[in-house]
Formats: sequence, C-alpha cells, structure tokens
Amino acid sequence: MGKLLKLTLKDIELARTLITDVVLKTRLEESVTASKAVGSKVFFKYENEQRTGSFKIRGALNKLRSMSEADKKRGVVASSAGNHAQGVALASAEAGVNCKIVMPQTAAFIKQAATKSYGAEVILHGQIYDEAFQYALAIAKEENRVFIPPFQDELIIAGQGTIGLELAEEIHDLDSIIVPIGGGGLISGIAVALKALNPHTKVFGVVAENAPGMEALFHSKKVPRGLTYQSIADGISVKSPSKEMYDSFLSKYVDDVISIGEDEIAESILFLLEREKTVVEGSGAISYAAALSGKLDLGDKTCCLLCGGNIDMNLISSILNRGLTRTGRLAQVSVIVDDRPGALQALTRVIAKEGANIMDVVHDRLAPELHIRETIIRFMLETKNEGHLESVRDALQRSGIAQRIIHDPSSK
Amino acid sequence: MGKLLKLTLKDIELARTLITDVVLKTRLEESVTASKAVGSKVFFKYENEQRTGSFKIRGALNKLRSMSEADKKRGVVASSAGNHAQGVALASAEAGVNCKIVMPQTAAFIKQAATKSYGAEVILHGQIYDEAFQYALAIAKEENRVFIPPFQDELIIAGQGTIGLELAEEIHDLDSIIVPIGGGGLISGIAVALKALNPHTKVFGVVAENAPGMEALFHSKKVPRGLTYQSIADGISVKSPSKEMYDSFLSKYVDDVISIGEDEIAESILFLLEREKTVVEGSGAISYAAALSGKLDLGDKTCCLLCGGNIDMNLISSILNRGLTRTGRLAQVSVIVDDRPGALQALTRVIAKEGANIMDVVHDRLAPELHIRETIIRFMLETKNEGHLESVRDALQRSGIAQRIIHDPSSK
Repeated sequence: MGKLLKLTLKDIELARTLITDVVLKTRLEESVTASKAVGSKVFFKYENEQRTGSFKIRGALNKLRSMSEADKKRGVVASSAGNHAQGVALASAEAGVNCKIVMPQTAAFIKQAATKSYGAEVILHGQIYDEAFQYALAIAKEENRVFIPPFQDELIIAGQGTIGLELAEEIHDLDSIIVPIGGGGLISGIAVALKALNPHTKVFGVVAENAPGMEALFHSKKVPRGLTYQSIADGISVKSPSKEMYDSFLSKYVDDVISIGEDEIAESILFLLEREKTVVEGSGAISYAAALSGKLDLGDKTCCLLCGGNIDMNLISSILNRGLTRTGRLAQVSVIVDDRPGALQALTRVIAKEGANIMDVVHDRLAPELHIRETIIRFMLETKNEGHLESVRDALQRSGIAQRIIHDPSSK
Repeated sequence: MGKLLKLTLKDIELARTLITDVVLKTRLEESVTASKAVGSKVFFKYENEQRTGSFKIRGALNKLRSMSEADKKRGVVASSAGNHAQGVALASAEAGVNCKIVMPQTAAFIKQAATKSYGAEVILHGQIYDEAFQYALAIAKEENRVFIPPFQDELIIAGQGTIGLELAEEIHDLDSIIVPIGGGGLISGIAVALKALNPHTKVFGVVAENAPGMEALFHSKKVPRGLTYQSIADGISVKSPSKEMYDSFLSKYVDDVISIGEDEIAESILFLLEREKTVVEGSGAISYAAALSGKLDLGDKTCCLLCGGNIDMNLISSILNRGLTRTGRLAQVSVIVDDRPGALQALTRVIAKEGANIMDVVHDRLAPELHIRETIIRFMLETKNEGHLESVRDALQRSGIAQRIIHDPSSK
C-alpha cells in the first residue's frame, strides 16, 4: 500500500469558504415520478446545472485558490476531453491564473468552445486522452506550470466534497446516496463529508458495465486486468481504477459499488429529458439507473447525484431516436406490393388518412423473398404511440394493396 | 367593450397562500452565456421545472382550492392538448376533486399518460382543440361539472401572478421581463403583480410570428382577421386573441408585444438544451429568442420566463438534427464517381481515415448531370464541426476517386 491521501470534514468546510462566491448551490428536489418508479423517495441533486455543466468546478477552484502566490504566477496546465477542462478553465479565470488545457483532437467542438470561452488556451493534441495527458505533463515541465490532476489530489477532493455539506444540511435523514465513479474523487469527497455529518447515510458508487474497473477492485480488492469498452457514460469510463483512491477512501467510506448497462443508462437519460426536463450526460444519469436497478438497499430516502450535463447533441439525438422507436413513436413498416404504377400513392393515402407522418421511403426490388414484379416499400413513420402504429399497420393490411406486411425486428 | 376582469395585488398574495404547499418556487438564475449574447444581464425563471412541467398548476390550484365545498362535490372538467390538462389534473388531485380532461385524439401520448398519472380521467375526443373544447362544455352541462377555463378567469390569472411575487422578491431592480402570450393569463397575472410592486419594471409580451393575433390587437387595438399557422410554439398558438384579456389587462399593464419567427424559436430551444442543460418547449424558449432579437429595450437586467417544458421528443429530435446540420455536425456530402467496383470502398476508406462517421449512403445513377457510367454517392456524415467537415471534403477531393463533389445547399 502506497502513501494514503487524507481528508477531514474541516478540509471540506474550508473548501466551501474558498469557492462559495463562484459555485452555485445546486437544487435538490424530490421527483414524484421517480419516487413512484423506485419505491423510495428519490431526490435529484442537479449538479448538471452547476457552472461549466458539472461538479468539476468545485474541486478545481479550491485547488487554484489554495495555491501560493508564487505558484499562481507559474500558471497551470491540465488535460481533459470534457468536464475537467471546463472546470479548470473557469477556476483559473476566477483565481486570476494563466491556464492551458490540452484536449485530444477528438474532443467535441462544443466543449472546446466552452473551455475557450472561459479564457483558457486550448491546445489540441493526440487522438485519445492519454496522448493529451502526456503532452500536458511535458508542457508542465517545459514551462514550469502547475499540473492540475483530475482527482488524485486532496484539495480537489475536498472541493467535490462540498456537495456532501449541501446534502447534509438540506436533508437530515437521508438513508442513501448514489454517486457515479470515474476516478473516484467525487464519491470520496462526498463520503468523507457525509460519514462525518450523517454516519447512517449509506454511500453507494456506480460504474458502467463497460468500464467496471472500480467495481471489480472494490469487491476483489485487486486491481483488475479488465477490459474497458466505449460507454455512453464517457465521463466515467476510466481505463483502470486507482488503487490509491480505493485504499485512501473507497475501502473506508463507501458501502457498495455496482455496475449498470448501456441500455439502462440511455433510458435514464431519456426519462430525465422527458419527465424532469433536464439534460444529463450518461455519467450523471447512471445514478438514477442504479436506483431503478433494484440492486441497492436504498432505504426510505435516497439521493441520485446528476453530476454533469455535458453530453453531445449527436448522442442525445441517437438516444432520442432509439427511445422513440422503442415506444412506438418512430417505426419502420415494410410492405410488399405488386410493382405497378400507383402502388406507392395508394399506400401513402392510407398512411395519411391514419395521421402518421412519413419520414423516409425506400424501395427494395432485390430482396430474396420477393416474387418477380413485387417490390418492398419500407416506410420510416412518425407515429403517436404503439396503439397508433398498430392501427396504421392494420389499415395497410385491410387496404388490400399490400401483399404482406413484414414485421421488422428493429421496431415493435 | 364588454365586462372587464379585475385583479389586484391582494388577490395574487391570497393565491400564494392557497397554493404554496404544492407549487414549487422555481429557480431564478443568471446565465453568464446568455448575458454575454444579449448584452444585458439575463435571468432565466425556470418554470419548465414546475410540477406538471409548466406554470399552469399555479392558476388551476388556486381556482380549485377557492371553489365552494358544493362545487368541489360537483367535480370539474377541462379541455386541453397539453399543459392546462396536466395542471388541472394535479390541482384536482391536490384539492380532492373528481376530474375529467378532454384531449384531442392527436394529443401526444406522453401528455395523455402524464395527465392520467395525476389521477384524472382522460377522454379523447376530436381531431383539434375546438372539438375537445365543445365536448368538455357538453360534459360540464350534462354531468353538472364545473368547467375550468384555461385563462379567462380571475382566480386562474391570480395564480399565474404568483410568479410575479417571486420575481419581485428575488430581484429588486429588474428592468424588464419577457413573457410568452397564449391566451394572456400568464402575462396579465405577472403584470398586475409587478406593476404594483416594481412599477418601473417593463413587461413585454411575445407571440409567434405564425400566431401573431395578440401582437396585432395590441398595436392596432382591433381583433385581427389574421391567419394562424402551425408553430413550434404550439402552447401559445391561439386562433384569435382575446379582446376581453386585452381590455382588462394587456392594454393597461403591458409595455409592448412583439413576434418571433420559427428559426429563432428553434435556436433558442437548442441553446437552452446545449448550454443551460434544460428542456424548454417552444412556447417557453420564445422569451429568450425575444431577448436576442434586439427589438426590445431590456435595460440592464431582464428576465426571460421559460414557462413550460412539455415538448414532444419527436420535435426535439428534429430540432437537434437541424441544429447539428447548421453547425457542421451532421452533413450530406455528395460525390460523383465512375460507376465501377471498388468506388464506394475507396471513398469510405478516405472518410474513415478522417474520423467521420457514416450514417447513411444512397446511390443515384439517374441524376441529369451524370455522364453514362457515372453515379452520385450521397453520404450522410456525422462530423465534429465545420472545420472537420471541410477536411473530409478536402480529403475526398484530393483522393482522386471523386470526379467532383457536389455542394449540397441544405448543408454548409
């Protein structure tokens, strides 16, 4: 066991005094709909509404404002594809420190733009995070800048822990909290605060099944040689879990760690959009997916930490389309007809009468199941719900134009 | 001029005492990004986060709780395609009153489900709102129920006015507020409260260009015979403006009314999703579009009322895709190549090397600009930004495989 990181409630209380003028006290609200679905009172902590769109500003600002004047003059450098970049950039601006951020060239344009808008110099380097990280270390050495790590730093962790203070003050009898784990800084800070103030509150961690390192380490006490795949929860997809964070904090203060699959994360994002009117990234929405999983003993009152909202609109669009398909609001309907003039017109008349909106039409004359002089016409339809979709299919069947209707396995 | 509706600050203060245990005091926060874009301090009032997803619960609950015990026993009925339905349904549940809601058959399934989830009986009737409205009146008569109107009622308007109390208490020196106008109940209640508490705060109304009735009435003082088209801001697309509301309130308390186009509303929805992490319907996002328009004298501090968040996910998906296209993150690239084996493989190799994701491929061999033995291959690509899209186009050009690349006017 290496050197342990150390943190007390006092460190976290001190952090709050240093960051409170910049950082928002984000709202904490019960969701009646989520409570019904889970069977416990579910409170959401909306850290996706924090400045820079995630909790990262808390730790970064505590770190920056705690630096000596001499270090502040040296300037800072950090590497990140997303939330840490924006947190360090705004924290530097607020602390009056020169800041360079190295991002991989694949970083989303909107995140680059946001980081620049806080006044940081953005340097694009490498295809993946590790290349950006190595380059940032080189800049730190060459330009004598202070490197700001994403989580393995007591001041950073103390800053994230201020969320725990807010929770303990607002709900005195919280039975549990679910916190997403990437590096582990967020859950460590919150757990130190909560176990000091409300020792009976259980602290649960959640990781993506596609990046399950910390779950394996927590249960086996060994750093796994696990594989990490791409996940919707990109902000918490770390390659290998930190033994230092486990030994210092998770082994002492965290009650359990579980993992959640991609479909459950996507459904949670869609629920939060559609019912809670809030944009949460996969790494944040995973906490609510964990509450729904039935794998945790939540007690009467639980809190799901929605730790960030920086999700690509590309990804939201894909998740929406998948969700719309699953609920019968976007569907492919394939019809086999005799290949003669007027067939498409007759079908579209039926569809229009049923009030469905045609998004796309494709003809397929080469499919093996066709007789000569037959064609498949595939419609992508916008429908109101599954019942409506069913009535469109029935009307097409009854019309006599369709030879047969193909059940498409990709839609219900 | 018919009978005028009357409302005082006292009515609104009384309303607050009746609804405060159910209704959330929604957050009011400055957006640094919006302030930079507009040039005044912009505060958003997040009424999209209100219970039922819009402000409508405020007025409905005041109305329901103010009813006599005898009327409560009669039960209520209302008609609506959306926000009013959910507001009346939850208000009835909280007031312990039996409730029927008539919705047009075209109402989104998610809104039907939400209305039912609050305990109301949902009756689907008619294709458009007016048919549902007539049927609700018939039910009121036949079953001796109290009909709950959407806005033309002093108790309803007093409930909506409680937003004005919250604003006046939180920001003492607000120079202006921008409020979306549908029927006019929301702006009337807020204006009565603000003009009593902060007489110098200007109250601006905004309507959709596609449903401009109240703008025309406000400036010409005559009910226009205007045309109303479909709008993204469906919640405020009323067929004709109410002379009663104009004479009673808007003519007295509102400083100006302007209209905003569909593209501006869509961009505002996208900005609120991407930067503010919040889901706002068109009728709510229009207030921020109005702030950006430059048409209003906002002063140093303005508030944009985001009055609702009940937007169809279908519509969000379309708006996202349009926004992604506009910002170079989704683009059609059409390439003319010699129609020979291996052409597609060669092109896709170039695209893969540039790191763009292919969403769709279509061949077109019949376009008039083609020579014999040429084909157009149209790619729908997911790219990171305009610069990335440009570099994909350049690489295709340099590859020597493409005869020419067609500039598609639908993408930049």
